[in-house]
Amino acid sequence: MSGVTGRFRIEGTDGRARAGLLSLERGDVPTPCFMPVGTQGTVKSLTPEDLQSIGSRIILANTYHLYLRPGTEVLAGAGGLHRFMHWDRPILTDSGGFQVFSLARINRVEDEGVTFQSHIDGSRHLLTPERAVEIQAVLGSDIMMALDECPAGQADRPTAREALERTVLWLERCRTRHAELEAEERAPGLLFPIVQGASYADLRLESLARTVELGEWAGLGIGGLSVGEAKDVTLEMLDVLEPEAPREVPRYLMGVGYPEDIVEAVRRGVDMFDCVAPTRNGRNGTAFTRDGRLNVKRSDLARDPRPLDPECRCECCRNYTRAYLRHLFVADELLGLRLLSLHNLAFLIDLASDARDAVLASGFEAWADAWLERYRAGTVTLTG
Amino acid sequence: MSGVTGRFRIEGTDGRARAGLLSLERGDVPTPCFMPVGTQGTVKSLTPEDLQSIGSRIILANTYHLYLRPGTEVLAGAGGLHRFMHWDRPILTDSGGFQVFSLARINRVEDEGVTFQSHIDGSRHLLTPERAVEIQAVLGSDIMMALDECPAGQADRPTAREALERTVLWLERCRTRHAELEAEERAPGLLFPIVQGASYADLRLESLARTVELGEWAGLGIGGLSVGEAKDVTLEMLDVLEPEAPREVPRYLMGVGYPEDIVEAVRRGVDMFDCVAPTRNGRNGTAFTRDGRLNVKRSDLARDPRPLDPECRCECCRNYTRAYLRHLFVADELLGLRLLSLHNLAFLIDLASDARDAVLASGFEAWADAWLERYRAGTVTLTG
Repeated sequence: MSGVTGRFRIEGTDGRARAGLLSLERGDVPTPCFMPVGTQGTVKSLTPEDLQSIGSRIILANTYHLYLRPGTEVLAGAGGLHRFMHWDRPILTDSGGFQVFSLARINRVEDEGVTFQSHIDGSRHLLTPERAVEIQAVLGSDIMMALDECPAGQADRPTAREALERTVLWLERCRTRHAELEAEERAPGLLFPIVQGASYADLRLESLARTVELGEWAGLGIGGLSVGEAKDVTLEMLDVLEPEAPREVPRYLMGVGYPEDIVEAVRRGVDMFDCVAPTRNGRNGTAFTRDGRLNVKRSDLARDPRPLDPECRCECCRNYTRAYLRHLFVADELLGLRLLSLHNLAFLIDLASDARDAVLASGFEAWADAWLERYRAGTVTLTG
Repeated sequence: MSGVTGRFRIEGTDGRARAGLLSLERGDVPTPCFMPVGTQGTVKSLTPEDLQSIGSRIILANTYHLYLRPGTEVLAGAGGLHRFMHWDRPILTDSGGFQVFSLARINRVEDEGVTFQSHIDGSRHLLTPERAVEIQAVLGSDIMMALDECPAGQADRPTAREALERTVLWLERCRTRHAELEAEERAPGLLFPIVQGASYADLRLESLARTVELGEWAGLGIGGLSVGEAKDVTLEMLDVLEPEAPREVPRYLMGVGYPEDIVEAVRRGVDMFDCVAPTRNGRNGTAFTRDGRLNVKRSDLARDPRPLDPECRCECCRNYTRAYLRHLFVADELLGLRLLSLHNLAFLIDLASDARDAVLASGFEAWADAWLERYRAGTVTLTG
């Protein structure tokens, strides 16, 4: 698996924060980066052109959902997920494991794999490490994730230990199957392992050490955070991992985040992020702004002629006022969901890009402190 | 009101079918034309840029909805509907009458006006002819419609007679108020009268005659059709009206239509159309194609690699397969609603444009027959 690691180049560091460039066959991804989530082969309400217009270089798709619907046969017939959804830039896919554990009805978890029932139709399926890799290869994933077992953030020690052991075991099998597919020239993309260990510093370090022992990876997934544990615990685990994590590969903190979480994680050496927060919040009428979160249904916005965030240059902020966006939400109009989803994604992509610029300018800490202070002040006033 | 009629130029005729150009301050509108409906200040799920991308030159907005929400004060504060919704091309607004009669709880209909209760919050309002004109002027309408009383398509003769009388009475008052606003240089746009008379040929002709007597109009609305009567009755009423209708103004058949209805109405001298059918059908998963209507949820589309309509050049047909669109609908994804809405609107706008070309090429009848035959054959096969 050597060779692939050369695809990531660190262009600058400032403290623990890093600015990098991940070069993939379907395009370059400057890091830190935020990946919009296209769970079912679509970033909800948006087209690929919308995503490109806000600078999205890579998106995430969920293997569990796509495996169940439309299924691998349809996706293989369409020539893979990129062609199916009309997105020609890189796609990172998760392994399906997290959704199996969070959405499906679990029948049995064994070393062999997970037997579960679909949340859609109750049909029974077996997900093994090998199968997770194969499905992601059918999707045509540019970066696939190894199958892991993700315990809750507050899992007790025996549970965390068991999940760690199984994750290591599964990682070896994912690696083997991935290498076979590579040998068959079935171009399975990169494979990222996932570090687990819940909220136990020693288990986190053990998980990392055993992962690194298994090979030279093209990237490192950090899983099992932001899944119920307190926020300072999340950051503490990042602090624990950072000094020991390989420098030369991108570090991907799975399922994070909110704007403030991204800033704090970049500060701790994380390079890649994904989260449904921007689209889900957008559909609920909550907009991220540089001055905090804004509920667009607020009655005092009814005549507000300003854009959501006057410093944002997305299509939503260029063309529409808060008054109009409020009207769309109050009147239950679909366009509101779309415009706020677009804005919130643009906001996080810009945030990652600004963080990158700050690292390259050797001013990350000052930038981060100022950014967080302003964001946390949190009150969007109607003056100015 | 003379002078304004000069804004419409007939560029060609073929039988009763006409090709024209309606010149408005905010832009030219080639006719026949189909106007997408933006009920609440948004064509559902689409941006103005989307509408421009499919050649939309004019849209319709509903006065009733916008009057109730966000209300005239908000709209006046925003500088009118165009600026509020970020659409700088012409907007035609209805009078609010049709929605008052179909959506609101009517308390009283008198010569003075209609007292009704909002379908949103039960609040009580009085809509008079003068008020209908004033509200549309606040919206900044490019073409406003006179307040009319629209009986059901199968209304009995006394009901149709009463609605006709009231419509004529209200038209006079609309004209007066409109002239006052013009004199005050409040630029109220054009005012179109509406012909009523339900399914009674003599009442239709009387309504038309009394409308024409009242002045030289910039256009002619044909109301009260496609509201429950049989389709051959709709066409019969158009046959009755056509020979007597003024030649030199655009004729607008309100609330029509489906593709086949548009072809038949253009054949009978109609120039302008609006309908929620394309967007509503799109949201329900029904696509218009040159080979008939297509239910995109059909299981046999699961692997269909073709666009909805291979002859369509809209964004949906350029970029997405039927298989993908089916997946979006089966998976309840918002993008499906958006893409089918866009396609169906593009389909009707192209249809109107093709009809225009056929008129200008003096081949309308043959084109219409061939178009209808193919559309009505109606089976979208999976071959070819």
